[in-house]
Amino acid sequence: MSLVRVQNFAISLDGFGTGEGQTRKEPFGHAGERLHDWMFASQAGRRMLGQPGGTAGVDDAFTRLFAPGIGAEIMGAHKYGYPGWEKDPEYKGPWGPNPPFHTPVFILTHHTRPPIEMEGGTTYHFIDASPAEALAAARKAAGGKDIRIGGGPTMLREFIKAGLVDHIHVVVVPILLGRGVRLWDGLEGLEKNYQIESVSSPSGVTHMTFTCAAHH
Amino acid sequence: MSLVRVQNFAISLDGFGTGEGQTRKEPFGHAGERLHDWMFASQAGRRMLGQPGGTAGVDDAFTRLFAPGIGAEIMGAHKYGYPGWEKDPEYKGPWGPNPPFHTPVFILTHHTRPPIEMEGGTTYHFIDASPAEALAAARKAAGGKDIRIGGGPTMLREFIKAGLVDHIHVVVVPILLGRGVRLWDGLEGLEKNYQIESVSSPSGVTHMTFTCAAHH
Repeated sequence: MSLVRVQNFAISLDGFGTGEGQTRKEPFGHAGERLHDWMFASQAGRRMLGQPGGTAGVDDAFTRLFAPGIGAEIMGAHKYGYPGWEKDPEYKGPWGPNPPFHTPVFILTHHTRPPIEMEGGTTYHFIDASPAEALAAARKAAGGKDIRIGGGPTMLREFIKAGLVDHIHVVVVPILLGRGVRLWDGLEGLEKNYQIESVSSPSGVTHMTFTCAAHH
Repeated sequence: MSLVRVQNFAISLDGFGTGEGQTRKEPFGHAGERLHDWMFASQAGRRMLGQPGGTAGVDDAFTRLFAPGIGAEIMGAHKYGYPGWEKDPEYKGPWGPNPPFHTPVFILTHHTRPPIEMEGGTTYHFIDASPAEALAAARKAAGGKDIRIGGGPTMLREFIKAGLVDHIHVVVVPILLGRGVRLWDGLEGLEKNYQIESVSSPSGVTHMTFTCAAHH
């Protein structure tokens, strides 16, 4: 059975998965790129930017788990675009002509439109669906591979709350954002459903993995 | 100059320093003892309970830093007692006749009363004071040693916000309490004032130390 996975989802120490004031230029609002500095300092992260070098430790190891074995991603409308993207018929996401997904991507939105085929194997599908329905559609498209839940925090929280996520990799970044969208709200007792491991990196972040108890 | 320190202050992954529904029997409310299991599993923690054995790794190392070099503690009224303790003239705290502090302890309360001398060097002083005033009183009593800020989360947050704390040791416990009193509210950008280090323990908790940049 294919797994439903979250990879490299970064939150601040006070639990925010994105900052306040998201715009087209600042998709994470006042958080800027601070939630992802650890990733772009790694070898795999620098390669995404077309740059050499980078760290080769635990941050790099986790960053490399983003793509292997994944057959489709599901993301929320706030990850796909800035507030108001639904009104722009030409908008094709913030990742350029060759997005880093290279699989079908299902975007949860009340404003559906026809699929958009991008370079490199990414196709954007716009669906107005519940988490369980979206997962069924993604599973069909994933050819037996795993499904990645891409966030943002609101949709990720909904998938977790619905008990649909097998494996969660969360990265706690030692900054206090103070405002934005929290990941953990309303998830009391989540630890009962998962085996949790933590490992701190010399970069300062702490990687936490939640693995569904049923898979042990 | 003596330092103002926080030692072994535990929070849940979603940031709560205490649970909801605090009572005389459950000082941490619905959190129970779950925020402190890591401590009482260590050698130093088990010794506090009069029990042999325990872990001897990083959890034990941090637990042992509770007392050395400390000349006084400041704590909030909610740490000292259950809701309503102010109405009980015989109440002497939840730690029994020989409390684990062995120094003067300053309790911040609007309901002051004469000092109470306990066994083992602990004296409870009840003061109605601002964080800065309380710190001045504690410094006077500490004989040049460090001051420990004991919590709970509300008073700790006020001391941090006032810029009075040199060193913070926070322990992130991988449980989601969902409700209670948050530590980090209103502290956006705190990382600018501190050097932060993290280390995960095999027990599952992550120890974070915040050291005031001015001391580097």
